[in-house]
Amino acid sequence: MTVYLPDGKALDLPEGATAWNVAKAVGPGLARAAVGALVDGEVYDLFQPLPEGAQVRILTEKDPEYQRLFRHTLAHVLAQAVKEYFREKGYDPESVKLGIGPVIEHGFYYDIDAPEPISDEDLPAIEARMREILKRDLPLRRFVLSREEALARYQGKDPYKTELIQEIPEGEEISFYQQGDEAYGFTDLCRGPHVPSTGRIPPHFKLTHVAGAYWRGDENRPMLQRVYGVAFRTEEELKEHLWRLEEAKKRDHRRLGKELELFLIDPMVGKGLVLWLPKGNILREELIQFMRQEQIRRGYQLVTTPHIGSLELYKTSGHYPYYAESQFPPIRFQERGEEEEYLLKPMNCPHHIRIYAHRKRSYRELPLRLAEFGTVYRYEKAGELLGLTRVRGFTQDDAHIFCTPEEVKGEFLGVLDLVLHVFHTLGLKDYRARIGVREPGSSKYVGDEAKWALAERQIEEAAKEAGLSYTVEPGDAAFYGPKLDFVVKDALGREWQLGTIQVDYNLPERFGLTYVGKDGGEHRPVMIHRAPFGSLERFIGILLEHFAGDFPLWLSPVQAVVVPVSEKQGDYAREVLSRLKEAGLRAEADLRPERMQARIRDAELQKIPYILVVGDEEQKTQAVSVRRRHKGNLGSMPLAAFLEGALREVREKRLDTVFG
Amino acid sequence: MTVYLPDGKALDLPEGATAWNVAKAVGPGLARAAVGALVDGEVYDLFQPLPEGAQVRILTEKDPEYQRLFRHTLAHVLAQAVKEYFREKGYDPESVKLGIGPVIEHGFYYDIDAPEPISDEDLPAIEARMREILKRDLPLRRFVLSREEALARYQGKDPYKTELIQEIPEGEEISFYQQGDEAYGFTDLCRGPHVPSTGRIPPHFKLTHVAGAYWRGDENRPMLQRVYGVAFRTEEELKEHLWRLEEAKKRDHRRLGKELELFLIDPMVGKGLVLWLPKGNILREELIQFMRQEQIRRGYQLVTTPHIGSLELYKTSGHYPYYAESQFPPIRFQERGEEEEYLLKPMNCPHHIRIYAHRKRSYRELPLRLAEFGTVYRYEKAGELLGLTRVRGFTQDDAHIFCTPEEVKGEFLGVLDLVLHVFHTLGLKDYRARIGVREPGSSKYVGDEAKWALAERQIEEAAKEAGLSYTVEPGDAAFYGPKLDFVVKDALGREWQLGTIQVDYNLPERFGLTYVGKDGGEHRPVMIHRAPFGSLERFIGILLEHFAGDFPLWLSPVQAVVVPVSEKQGDYAREVLSRLKEAGLRAEADLRPERMQARIRDAELQKIPYILVVGDEEQKTQAVSVRRRHKGNLGSMPLAAFLEGALREVREKRLDTVFG
Repeated sequence: MTVYLPDGKALDLPEGATAWNVAKAVGPGLARAAVGALVDGEVYDLFQPLPEGAQVRILTEKDPEYQRLFRHTLAHVLAQAVKEYFREKGYDPESVKLGIGPVIEHGFYYDIDAPEPISDEDLPAIEARMREILKRDLPLRRFVLSREEALARYQGKDPYKTELIQEIPEGEEISFYQQGDEAYGFTDLCRGPHVPSTGRIPPHFKLTHVAGAYWRGDENRPMLQRVYGVAFRTEEELKEHLWRLEEAKKRDHRRLGKELELFLIDPMVGKGLVLWLPKGNILREELIQFMRQEQIRRGYQLVTTPHIGSLELYKTSGHYPYYAESQFPPIRFQERGEEEEYLLKPMNCPHHIRIYAHRKRSYRELPLRLAEFGTVYRYEKAGELLGLTRVRGFTQDDAHIFCTPEEVKGEFLGVLDLVLHVFHTLGLKDYRARIGVREPGSSKYVGDEAKWALAERQIEEAAKEAGLSYTVEPGDAAFYGPKLDFVVKDALGREWQLGTIQVDYNLPERFGLTYVGKDGGEHRPVMIHRAPFGSLERFIGILLEHFAGDFPLWLSPVQAVVVPVSEKQGDYAREVLSRLKEAGLRAEADLRPERMQARIRDAELQKIPYILVVGDEEQKTQAVSVRRRHKGNLGSMPLAAFLEGALREVREKRLDTVFG
Repeated sequence: MTVYLPDGKALDLPEGATAWNVAKAVGPGLARAAVGALVDGEVYDLFQPLPEGAQVRILTEKDPEYQRLFRHTLAHVLAQAVKEYFREKGYDPESVKLGIGPVIEHGFYYDIDAPEPISDEDLPAIEARMREILKRDLPLRRFVLSREEALARYQGKDPYKTELIQEIPEGEEISFYQQGDEAYGFTDLCRGPHVPSTGRIPPHFKLTHVAGAYWRGDENRPMLQRVYGVAFRTEEELKEHLWRLEEAKKRDHRRLGKELELFLIDPMVGKGLVLWLPKGNILREELIQFMRQEQIRRGYQLVTTPHIGSLELYKTSGHYPYYAESQFPPIRFQERGEEEEYLLKPMNCPHHIRIYAHRKRSYRELPLRLAEFGTVYRYEKAGELLGLTRVRGFTQDDAHIFCTPEEVKGEFLGVLDLVLHVFHTLGLKDYRARIGVREPGSSKYVGDEAKWALAERQIEEAAKEAGLSYTVEPGDAAFYGPKLDFVVKDALGREWQLGTIQVDYNLPERFGLTYVGKDGGEHRPVMIHRAPFGSLERFIGILLEHFAGDFPLWLSPVQAVVVPVSEKQGDYAREVLSRLKEAGLRAEADLRPERMQARIRDAELQKIPYILVVGDEEQKTQAVSVRRRHKGNLGSMPLAAFLEGALREVREKRLDTVFG
C-alpha cells in the first residue's frame, strides 16, 4: 500500500501498516517522538491500520491533538485503577463493570458500576493508583475480535459492554485496546485512538468529582457512577484550569445570589420562578432604567402589555400549537356557553403587533420601535432549570421595530450601536457576532427572495460598518428571516450567547400588517425582533459571575456603608448617612456595638464598594476615611469631596473608582 | 286615632286619616302647600293612612323630600304618556305592558314592553306629552284591592304586573294609584308615595335615554326597554345636572383614551386586558416613578415577583378555593407523573410573605415594608368589564408591611401621610375616610381580641392625628382585620373609592410567620396591606375623567409642541425641539405644511400643555411665543426662560403653569 507524507513524498508499506510503521520509515527520532498521526485530517493512534493512499502526518507531544490521545488513555487508566482499587478491597475486579469512558472538554470520564459506591473521598486513592500506572509505563496494543469472540469475552460478566458490542453495526471492526499484560494490565472494548504507552501520559491530571449518570441517559435504566477527571499537557495549564473551576464555584450566581440576598427561588411559589429580593431588585431596576433611557434616546416608544393573551392570538402568530411543548398549557373556561382560552404569553411580539395594527399606519411613522420590559413565561422541564440562567419566567428587554425593507440596515446599525454601548458600559470587551443566513438551495424559507437577499446584505454591511468581528453562518437563519446573534466572553473566558437581532417576514404576513407608502398604496412592513440583554434574569446571572458580585458603583445595591470607629461617633455617622441618602446614594450605617474590624469585614462580605470609616478626626473636620473594595484605604477626604466623586462615578457608570 | 305634630301637639282624627287630614286640621294654607308628610321619619304622601300615634310633619315644596315624591309620580306620568303615544300610533294602550318604575338618583325610570321598540328619537314626543299631562293637573288617588280583584285587573293583559302582585306577601295591602279618570288618566299598581296631582310636579325634567333591561335582571327572561329621566326642583339644578352629564360624556376615559391614544383594549388580545400605548405608558410610568420615589423615601423596599404562583401557595393563604369564582382557573400539567398546578396571581401578598419568610427575621428589621407594582389577574364576567375601571388584569401599587402589634399606629400614620401627599399632588382636595371595625357581638373574626381592640384604637388615633375627616363603620372590617378606605370626589363631584389600608391577623397565622423579639422569643408579626392608587388602571381612568385629559405638565405624555409660523422657521423649530429634548422635556415639532392655525388646533385637540410658536422675531432673538392650554397666549420669552420654568413646573409637579 502507499501513503503520502506532508511533503508529498509517497511511502510504500506492507498491507495493514500503521502510523508507527510510517514514523519508523521516516527515522528513529520521529519514531521515538511519535504519539499518533493525523490521517486524512483525522487523529489516529500508532496502532490503527492506515487506509490506502492516506495523507499521514506524524503527531508528537508538541501537537495540540496529543491532548485528545492522552485524555482518552487516561480514561482507560482510570478504569484499570478502579478495578485494582476494588481488588485491593477484596472484590473480584470483574465485579467492577464499565459503561463508556470518553474524552470531554478539559478531560475525560468513565461510567462505572462498582460493587461499592465510589465517593469523592475515594478519588485521591484512585488518582494515586493512576499515577502508579503511568509510572509502570504499560505499552498499549490494539487487537480485533469477531463479534462472537468479543461477546464471549464479556458474557455474563459485563452487561454494559455486551450491549455496546451488540450495537456495533455488522461489518464494522470490533477493536480492543490492551495496556500491560492480562495480570497487571487492563483491556477495553474501544475504537481508540490512544498514546503508545501509559508512560507517555503527562502527570498533569486530577480526578475532580463523581456524579450519578443513568446508563445511556435513560432514567429507566441502572444508574452508574461517572468519575470525572481533567488533564492537561503542563502543570500550568492544570493549575490555571483548577483555579478557574474554583473561581467559577465562588462566582456561581446561585451562591452569590444567596449570600448577597439578591433573589430567591422558592418551591412553594413554583419551580423556575424568580422572586427578586430588595437588593437584587435594585440591580434589576438599574439595568431597566439604563436600557429604558438609552432606548428613549434612540427613538423607541415604550408600551406595556398584559401577561396573557387569547389563544387566538397565538394561533394567528403560529406560536400555538407549534411551540406548545415549550409553553404552559392554556387557561380555559366557559362564559355563557362560550369558551374563552388564554395563554401565559411566551413572547411579546403578538401584543406589539396588535398595537401596530390598532390603526392605519403611514410610512411617515416608520420605523416604529415599540419596546417593553415584558415578562414572559415558558415551560422548561424541572430537571433543566438552573438558577437564573434556565427559568420558567423571565423579563425580556424586548422591542419590535416595524420598518420598510430598505430601512433594515439603518435599524441594524442602530441596534448594534445600542448593544455595543451596553457591552462597553458593563466592561464586556470580548464579543463577536454570528450572522445567520439561508442554507443555500433550501426552500424552507418564507418571504420574498429579493427581500431576503437585501436583508442579508444589509445585515452584513451593518456589522462591517459597526466594526464588529463576525462570522456568516449559512443555514443559521430562522425560517422567517436572517439574524445576528452576539456571543460574549466573561471575565473567566466563558462564552455566553446574549441578545439577538432577528428579521421577520412571517408575522407581518400572518397578521396582515400594512402601511401606506409614499405612493399611496398599501405595503407590508418588515419586523425586527431584538433584545440586547435577552433575558434580564439570565443577563444578571451572567453579570453576577462576570463581576463575581463586585458590581460597578451604579449597579451596587448598597453603595456605601458608614462605620464609626466607636459609639462616640454614632451621631456623626448618622449625619454622614443622611447626607449620603439625600444626595441619592444607597447607603447604610453600621452602628452595631461590634469591633470596627468585624464591621468592616461584614461590609467586605457584602461586597459594598465604599466603606466610610469615621473617627474623631473625621468628625472634627467633616471628613470620611474612604476604603474602596479591592483598592484598600484611599485616605481621608472631606465628605463633600467624597459625595461629588461618588455621584460622578454613578452618573458616568464607571467600571472603576474615580478616586486615586 | 291620635297623631302628633312637630310641636308635640296631639291631634285626634278619625280612623284611616291621612296627612291630608292633618294638613287641613292645621289650616287651609298648609293644606294648599302640602305635598306629603314625614311620618315617623318616613316619607308618606297625602293619601296613605297614618298609623296610630304617629309623629307627623307636613312636607311642602320647600322640603328636600319633595324631590322623591314628584320623581315617583313622574315615572307614572311617563307610563301614561307612553300609553297615549302608542294609542295615537293606532295601538291598543293595553298592548303597552309595564314592569317597574322606581325613583333613582337624579330621577326615575320605567321598564316598558311596547308594541314597537322605543328609541331615543321617540323621547322628545313622549316628553312633550308628559308636559301636557302635567298641565292637565290630574289629581292622584289611592285605592286598595283584594288579591283577586288586583289579579283580575291585569289578567291576560300584563304578565309583569300579574307577577308583581303574586309576589306581594299575604296580609300586605295591594294599593293602586290613579291619576285622572279611567279614560284620560292612568292607574298603576304602586306602594306610593306621590304628589297630590300632576300639576304639583315641577316641569324641570328631561328624558335622557333608553336602554335594554332584562325583566327582574334575569338574562333568561324577556328584555324590556328602560326609559330614563332626570328631574329637579329648579331649572338651574336640571341645567347643572345636564351639563355634568355632558361633561362626564366628554371626559369618559374610554373616549379620551382613544382620542389621545393612551390605551387599547383589543378583543383579539383578550377581554378586559389593557395594552398601554406609548402615550398612556408615559402616564403610567410617571405615576409609578412618583410612587416609587415616595416609597423609597419612606423606607419601603421594592421587590419583583412572578405573575403566577403554585396553587399550594393559595391553598395555604386561603385564597383558593374560597375566591375561585373571581380568579382565572388554575394551569395544570403533569411532569414525570407529578401534577403541577399554578394560578395567575390574583394578589401579591403570598409572594411577599414568602420573601418575608425566606430567612429568620428579627424585631430589629421591623417594620419591614415590601412594595411592588404587581400586576394581578382576576376574573370578571365579560358583561361587567368597563374601560379601565373594571378589568381582568391590573397593576396594584401594592405593599405589605410586616410589623409588631404596637407599630400599627405608626405605620398607619406613615401610609396616611403618603396617601394624602398623593391626593394633594394630584389636586384631589375632597376626600374622606371610612374606618371599618368589628360588628359588635359577632364572633366571625380571626385573631386575638386584645390585638383587634388595640389596632382599631390605633387606626382611629392615626386618622385623628392626620387630621382626616372619617367615619367609623361597625361591621365593615374584614374577618381578618380592621381597615381604612379612602373615598375621593373628582372634579365633577363624583365619589370614587380609592386605596385601602388593611390590617391582617390571618395570613401571618396561616403562613406561620414569626420574628425574634427583644425578649429572644418568637412572635407573630401583624401584616398591613396597602395600595394608595389601588389599581393603576382604575386610578388612571379616574384621573383621566378628573382632569378631562388635561394633565398637569409632569404627567402629560407630550409636554410641548413647537409650531413654526411657516416653513422658513423650520430649522429654528428643529433647534428648539432638540433643546427641549436635551433638557428632558417630552416635545414634538409640527413641521407639516399646514396652516399655522390648523396645527395649533391639532395640538389643542391633543391637549398638549405648551404650544411654542416660532416666527422670524423669535428666531432672531432665540425666543419662543408661549401658548398655555386654557390660559391662551403668555407672550414671547427667551427659550432659556421657558426651559427653566417648564422644568421647574415638572420638578415641582405643579397643577398649574409657573408662567403668568
